[in-house]
Amino acid sequence: MSSVLIRDAVIVTMNGEGEIVRGDVYIEGNRISAIGPGLRQEADQVIEAVGKVLLPGFVQTHIHLCQTLFRGRADDLELIDWLRERIWPLEAAHSEGSVYISALLGIGELIRGGTTTILDMETVHHTDSAFRAIEASGIRAIAGKVMMDHGSEVPLALQEKTEDSLRESVRLLEKWHGAAEGRIQYAFCPRFVVSCTEELLVGVRDLSEKYGVLVHTHASENREEIAIVEAERGHRNVVYLDRIGLAGPNLVLAHSIWLDDEEKRIIRERGVKVTHCPASNLKLASGVAEVPALLEAGIPVGLGADGAPCNNNLNMFQEMRLAAFVQKVKHGPTVMNARSVLRMATMGGAEVLGMQGEIGSVEVGKLADLQLLDLEEFHAFPSYDADWYSRIVYAAQAGDVDTVLVDGRVVMEGKNVLTIDKKRTLEEADRELRELLARIG
Amino acid sequence: MSSVLIRDAVIVTMNGEGEIVRGDVYIEGNRISAIGPGLRQEADQVIEAVGKVLLPGFVQTHIHLCQTLFRGRADDLELIDWLRERIWPLEAAHSEGSVYISALLGIGELIRGGTTTILDMETVHHTDSAFRAIEASGIRAIAGKVMMDHGSEVPLALQEKTEDSLRESVRLLEKWHGAAEGRIQYAFCPRFVVSCTEELLVGVRDLSEKYGVLVHTHASENREEIAIVEAERGHRNVVYLDRIGLAGPNLVLAHSIWLDDEEKRIIRERGVKVTHCPASNLKLASGVAEVPALLEAGIPVGLGADGAPCNNNLNMFQEMRLAAFVQKVKHGPTVMNARSVLRMATMGGAEVLGMQGEIGSVEVGKLADLQLLDLEEFHAFPSYDADWYSRIVYAAQAGDVDTVLVDGRVVMEGKNVLTIDKKRTLEEADRELRELLARIG
Repeated sequence: MSSVLIRDAVIVTMNGEGEIVRGDVYIEGNRISAIGPGLRQEADQVIEAVGKVLLPGFVQTHIHLCQTLFRGRADDLELIDWLRERIWPLEAAHSEGSVYISALLGIGELIRGGTTTILDMETVHHTDSAFRAIEASGIRAIAGKVMMDHGSEVPLALQEKTEDSLRESVRLLEKWHGAAEGRIQYAFCPRFVVSCTEELLVGVRDLSEKYGVLVHTHASENREEIAIVEAERGHRNVVYLDRIGLAGPNLVLAHSIWLDDEEKRIIRERGVKVTHCPASNLKLASGVAEVPALLEAGIPVGLGADGAPCNNNLNMFQEMRLAAFVQKVKHGPTVMNARSVLRMATMGGAEVLGMQGEIGSVEVGKLADLQLLDLEEFHAFPSYDADWYSRIVYAAQAGDVDTVLVDGRVVMEGKNVLTIDKKRTLEEADRELRELLARIG
Repeated sequence: MSSVLIRDAVIVTMNGEGEIVRGDVYIEGNRISAIGPGLRQEADQVIEAVGKVLLPGFVQTHIHLCQTLFRGRADDLELIDWLRERIWPLEAAHSEGSVYISALLGIGELIRGGTTTILDMETVHHTDSAFRAIEASGIRAIAGKVMMDHGSEVPLALQEKTEDSLRESVRLLEKWHGAAEGRIQYAFCPRFVVSCTEELLVGVRDLSEKYGVLVHTHASENREEIAIVEAERGHRNVVYLDRIGLAGPNLVLAHSIWLDDEEKRIIRERGVKVTHCPASNLKLASGVAEVPALLEAGIPVGLGADGAPCNNNLNMFQEMRLAAFVQKVKHGPTVMNARSVLRMATMGGAEVLGMQGEIGSVEVGKLADLQLLDLEEFHAFPSYDADWYSRIVYAAQAGDVDTVLVDGRVVMEGKNVLTIDKKRTLEEADRELRELLARIG
């Protein structure tokens, strides 16, 4: 079993007591086995972290890796137009190669910025390619193919029969759930109620119970979307999902901006989880989610950058700043302080995935998903008598992440992602995009 | 006369025609003397920029360098509390040394992120120190000491007599206006109406006319501030400033969030300028300025990060993203597109300073204030068929700036600020802050 010793860091643990300690972290295999000052263990690899800050890796609970290739190709549009005019035609033109490089490009950005776990929604086809990129990159991911068997405005290449959608999902699940020694998991991903028949959603409900896996979908992001759901199903999103038995602890809803009181009650009572995507919600003009009220009600809330075309980065430092700022201007400057935001970016995300016992904090027994920040920069100083939460949430940047470990393995060191060939990935991304656009014509 | 040749860049000119060209830029002395493909001039220094993007340096029209040392020391407070409980006592404890290092730390961050010109408001005392830091760093700045001769809640050390405030301002102006071969200018900086007697403001009006320099102040940032002004002066900020003859083309108002129709009319008719500070306005819960309406009315609007304690960065890339996002969620996703935002960050700022003939675009005859971006990064790809404005505004980060020139001089190269010793500045910042806090007790 390989071992890593990280020496002399300031450790922002994000444990229940909010401890910040100076010391060492010893990792055996893929788990943290000791934390403390002056650890004497022998290790295969020693990382000198003096002057650096050790944090849990970020957990982003709503990502579309398959869209990274479309960064900058769908600016300044509203959600439904954004989907119909740009994202769906682009997704429909994806190939095995373009899905692979899109995922790798996104993961490169995610690891570079300290994200170690994602909940990811792929496109209809070629999802094996995304899993291969996840496997090769070393990131921890719960991913699944998107499911969409309803709606006439969907491009032909993305339309699938209910039965095929369920069968392909199960095939992928059986192939990839638990792969890479458990680092990869599967989640069913019905896109949103608008693009799913009730038959599909009921099938997803039964299969997610059978296999004990998450259901990852969008809900109540946009008022036009809600109007379509109400017209077709006679209820608002969460009420409808509850009526068909999908609202439970395995359900993760992205966005959840426009919830009424009944929907909030259902989310709370059924143990449904929510992902907040502040940059995406602003850029698509979707609205501002009522995150302080959700947290107040004890609902687990994670953060996610969504896809590159609606952001246009996959950068948790930007999401954290925004998550604080958008609530302050609405509810006053004392809400969403730096510590509560950093909690959402780490333990909050872990809770959304039901993995709070495994990731999200630096604690003995947890998986070694960690990041080291180098804050010796103009923009993060002074350091004297500094509040670490403020420094990380309000001042640090993705470029300050120096070293990243996932599952006990060093995947970035000295700001270089070790598992992804950057130069080649950038070249391939351009080539695959050019070919994809040629397929659209 | 020294010369610099920048070769083979993608040049996002920000000129009136919005031209984006591939080619070279030749600089003689402090001005751009030629732009085009295949320039053959001999140069003292050649910068190979193949694969890089050349932009005008950013112009930030509202900065408090003297507050950089207080980054992270005033989080989660509203404006008036933020001033009275934290910022004023901290400013009151400043020394010559702490003002100097605070300015240098801020300028290091600004240059590192591509900002080449600032409009800066210092504190009451030790403003020579700030000018010395500006001079040494090579940044272009219009700065001035803050003026405050009114208000009982101001710490004793910041209270000044009207006459002394005016006299010290004129002394600084005569010493620094036009220094460093014109790179440094002076502006009168009455803090805001709340902290200024009418006598002081009238004195500033006469002196700014006499010397032909800007007046830099805050107005209509916060509703409590506006209530105080209305109670004391019988009018809202801009109406009051107009009645005493201060509302003219030399006046730059920071924030201007809560303007009524009469105030907007005065701003437009008198040629007053406005600075938008989106991050500061959100973090202090001040509100969201009506920037699209101001631009629609033809009012020059610049962007600024404000001071480090209310942001907590001085990062134009963050301000640009936010300037777009906060308007989209309010007015729909098509407002404030990437090109209009980049214009605000460059030519818009130049117009606010009355320097549109000198800076803000890459054009022959203009001052050589330039930045080169290296976008060969995961977070800024794909590059194929990319919209340059989208890539710069929505995807690029401060860390992507590779090279910066101010006044024809290379002040950053290979991501290293050449004019500021980073290690020493960070150490001195910690030492000066420790001593400053000890003075407060």
